[in-house]
Amino acid sequence: MKKIVTIGGGTGHFTLLSGLKNYSVDISAVVSMADDGGSTGRLRDELGVLPPGDVRQCLVALSDSSEILRELMNYRFENGDLKGHNFGNLLLSALEKIGSGFTNGLREAAKILNIKGWVLPVSENKMNLAIKLKNGEILLGEKHLDDNPNIKQYGIEKVFLKPRVKANTRVIRDIKKADLIILGPGDHYGSIIPNLLVNEISKAIQKSKAVVIYNCNLTNKKGQTEGFDLDKYAQEINKYLGKNRIDYVVYPNKQPDEQLINKYEKKEGKGSIVQFNKNNLKNRPYKVIKAEITANDVIIKKKHDAIADTRSFIRHNSKKLAKVMMLLSEREEYKNVIEEVR
Amino acid sequence: MKKIVTIGGGTGHFTLLSGLKNYSVDISAVVSMADDGGSTGRLRDELGVLPPGDVRQCLVALSDSSEILRELMNYRFENGDLKGHNFGNLLLSALEKIGSGFTNGLREAAKILNIKGWVLPVSENKMNLAIKLKNGEILLGEKHLDDNPNIKQYGIEKVFLKPRVKANTRVIRDIKKADLIILGPGDHYGSIIPNLLVNEISKAIQKSKAVVIYNCNLTNKKGQTEGFDLDKYAQEINKYLGKNRIDYVVYPNKQPDEQLINKYEKKEGKGSIVQFNKNNLKNRPYKVIKAEITANDVIIKKKHDAIADTRSFIRHNSKKLAKVMMLLSEREEYKNVIEEVR
Repeated sequence: MKKIVTIGGGTGHFTLLSGLKNYSVDISAVVSMADDGGSTGRLRDELGVLPPGDVRQCLVALSDSSEILRELMNYRFENGDLKGHNFGNLLLSALEKIGSGFTNGLREAAKILNIKGWVLPVSENKMNLAIKLKNGEILLGEKHLDDNPNIKQYGIEKVFLKPRVKANTRVIRDIKKADLIILGPGDHYGSIIPNLLVNEISKAIQKSKAVVIYNCNLTNKKGQTEGFDLDKYAQEINKYLGKNRIDYVVYPNKQPDEQLINKYEKKEGKGSIVQFNKNNLKNRPYKVIKAEITANDVIIKKKHDAIADTRSFIRHNSKKLAKVMMLLSEREEYKNVIEEVR
Repeated sequence: MKKIVTIGGGTGHFTLLSGLKNYSVDISAVVSMADDGGSTGRLRDELGVLPPGDVRQCLVALSDSSEILRELMNYRFENGDLKGHNFGNLLLSALEKIGSGFTNGLREAAKILNIKGWVLPVSENKMNLAIKLKNGEILLGEKHLDDNPNIKQYGIEKVFLKPRVKANTRVIRDIKKADLIILGPGDHYGSIIPNLLVNEISKAIQKSKAVVIYNCNLTNKKGQTEGFDLDKYAQEINKYLGKNRIDYVVYPNKQPDEQLINKYEKKEGKGSIVQFNKNNLKNRPYKVIKAEITANDVIIKKKHDAIADTRSFIRHNSKKLAKVMMLLSEREEYKNVIEEVR
């Protein structure tokens, strides 16, 4: 059975895993422990637990349990002291408190939710993301990515972990054994890169024999990755990996229709769709694969569903994305469905 | 299979059900919806849900799931906004919010916990307990039982529901079919009587062909049932039932040892152990059964276990209590194990 390691974040990771779980593959979903915003941040601060938010989304994606149990995990309380907390976050926090640590708690949650595969924290230590701006200022905490006005004004020079953390040995083992490593989709500075900042993780990926695919996000994030094009993203990922290790960068073979783009840019600002220009770069150290990976359907938003709440309407389609991942993993003939750009 | 309806509250109900579930019987555990204190009260106020606390304890008692899942249900958060909330209460509240109402949520929780039998709210309406004191004052809310100094000063004249509520039809059906109805253990004014205040419930018990057993509490509650003896309790229950319907009142065949009583009375005040005097009453409309029903063991308190936290150290033993219930349900020869007092 093919061994796949995914490194992603948030709803992008959820989408990827929801698609992959329909294949007969062995999935290890790796999740950063740097999240410190929202419900997750409150639990981290108040209870001293590891951040449960992204783990929860992976568990739900890989779960084979009833629809209502999956809905329960994403249920967000709307009133009182509990307002803003996801039930699934509380479950993971309580399990961490009862058992001995996050990994044991996670194992119990995986049993309750009957998940296919593994969800693994990249480290069993809490991680703190430091954000160095181009003006020299250093912000401590991933949550500042979204709320600090100086990021928009000066731009990000680099991110790093403070202090360094040890990698989860189970993740290193799975990377070593992997046939396929998938980076993204997921928040660039908030989710993907924090995983790569754990030294042993990047090193293990460097050395791995696996096919490495990078699923670039479809849209830029205001103030953070504003103006990034596909190559800029891929180059940054390779930089944080410490080696040109990406084999394939996947890009949609068609753009969303004008109307959707306009609607999106009205909300997020001009130029917020990630662009790709074949002629920008001469010798790419990766192949760009154009493929049908985006969703045309409308999101049916469930009441209280925290995932649907935050899901962008320009987004990957889980089935299509997973199909392309599986094709690329074969390193075989895939011209019929995808177009390769060198 | 023998059909048993239990009407109780809190840890007493938990103890009874934990014992009964080991028999091949069909159990319906009926729970009052008048609770409005603690974690339950906060959820009721802030989320508008039905009170989950007592239901949670019944679910855990009847659960056949893993030890860790049972521990999870009773886990109480210790810090931050979540402080004081039981995880199980949050589960029930979230399920009520997602599904359509408390009963559906309860059904899902029962599935997750793999419970044997049924846990049924006595009404699907929120209940408000009104407490009339002997000085004429009326207190609204069950929580006042524990915190209002006037209760201690003047004493309780009666309790009633304001407004009246409709009984859960499923409970009525189960009472009609029951072979055995067990009242208590459980808080006298806080748990047992609120169930009997739902008119249709008392009427259904009056008409029922079942054996009706009353498990009187072992200790009195300061200010509420201070100075009550066994007969006073039983007479009050019959009064609220609207008929002398109790067949058996169960009382321990031996008292806790002196040392334990002293320890208890030091904390709870003199005379806090329920007494029985055979000669107090001439013609009892019920048989008093003396039997071995109390625990001699020491509670092994689990960290974070909200049930053990509040459990009195003078208490029923679940196996012994359940055994006596089963014997009495046969209306057969039971002289070998229990002593009957008329």
